[in-house]
Amino acid sequence: MEKGLLLVVSGPSGAGKGTICKRLLSENKNIKLSISATTRSPRAGEVDGVNYFFLDKKDFEEKIKKNEFLEYAEVYGNYYGTPKQYVLEQLNSGKDVLLEIDIQGALNIKEIYPDGVFVFILPPSMEELKSRIVKRGTETKESLTRRFESAYEEIKFAFKYDYAVVNDEVDLAVNKIQSIISAEKYRVHRQKDTIDGI
Amino acid sequence: MEKGLLLVVSGPSGAGKGTICKRLLSENKNIKLSISATTRSPRAGEVDGVNYFFLDKKDFEEKIKKNEFLEYAEVYGNYYGTPKQYVLEQLNSGKDVLLEIDIQGALNIKEIYPDGVFVFILPPSMEELKSRIVKRGTETKESLTRRFESAYEEIKFAFKYDYAVVNDEVDLAVNKIQSIISAEKYRVHRQKDTIDGI
Repeated sequence: MEKGLLLVVSGPSGAGKGTICKRLLSENKNIKLSISATTRSPRAGEVDGVNYFFLDKKDFEEKIKKNEFLEYAEVYGNYYGTPKQYVLEQLNSGKDVLLEIDIQGALNIKEIYPDGVFVFILPPSMEELKSRIVKRGTETKESLTRRFESAYEEIKFAFKYDYAVVNDEVDLAVNKIQSIISAEKYRVHRQKDTIDGI
Repeated sequence: MEKGLLLVVSGPSGAGKGTICKRLLSENKNIKLSISATTRSPRAGEVDGVNYFFLDKKDFEEKIKKNEFLEYAEVYGNYYGTPKQYVLEQLNSGKDVLLEIDIQGALNIKEIYPDGVFVFILPPSMEELKSRIVKRGTETKESLTRRFESAYEEIKFAFKYDYAVVNDEVDLAVNKIQSIISAEKYRVHRQKDTIDGI
């Protein structure tokens, strides 16, 4: 059996990657979600084991020592990491694994797992991004400006990814990613067993 | 506007690439067929300007001198070549171009146009390939053995291509190639203008 795909998805806040990932998971039963671990406190509505595995610093550092993360990083004093065992087990059993992760995390993954498929979600335009963030209504004016500026910087990193998907409409964007998943499975280097078999 | 894709399709005799290419062209109106030129004589049923552009040796060598081929090769004393102008015009106008070509030609194209998308069509198994060639009933026993042996050698070259598509059913194989075409358009390096625009 051929291994599954590690699908790494990033994009600026407001590009809609959360909605896209949820839809992908509900439409494509071969995709399993990798849940990250973090030492930051849960925000309102976040559930342990659903949004993140919430760990205390001591437990997280214990796991670092035991080499239990595919990658981890410290951001503003909090750790974030991708638990290794779950991801590798799923890939080896032929399941695809979805990792929704920030740019720093994605670039770390690319270093150690270059066989992953790296997808960057883009807003149709910066105006549209702004209006989406405003519509959410969860941001103060300052944090809105900050998010918008960091989105601008983040988009430059799209060129480090394999694919860029413009999220003009969620349905279309999900279909685009499904095409990418299908096509990647026909890549010659992922079909060595099949070709040798023939 | 982003450039079109150059889709280069090869595969052993009996893998079904002819049928697949015909279906692709009729289903996807953005794909234009590149017709090769040759100095070999037309076979029964072959039409000039449809199957090939049939040229005499002098005309072909004239065109070589004028650098009018994307690539050309001499095989068993006959020239085969890909007229350059048509292909580049279509790509520049955003059309995708389909090139059904033998392995030697495909590898030549890859040297000079690495941005092409190289797809190798495989039979589901060597037994199936044999039975397809036998069913055609157009081969003597000797030429059948020769075709079968050369198919065996050719399949090893699949690893030089980007994608391998197993033709178990024509409908499925055509859909696989459509996914590949879609996905390739979302590749970051083909979307430079789009990303810069945002």
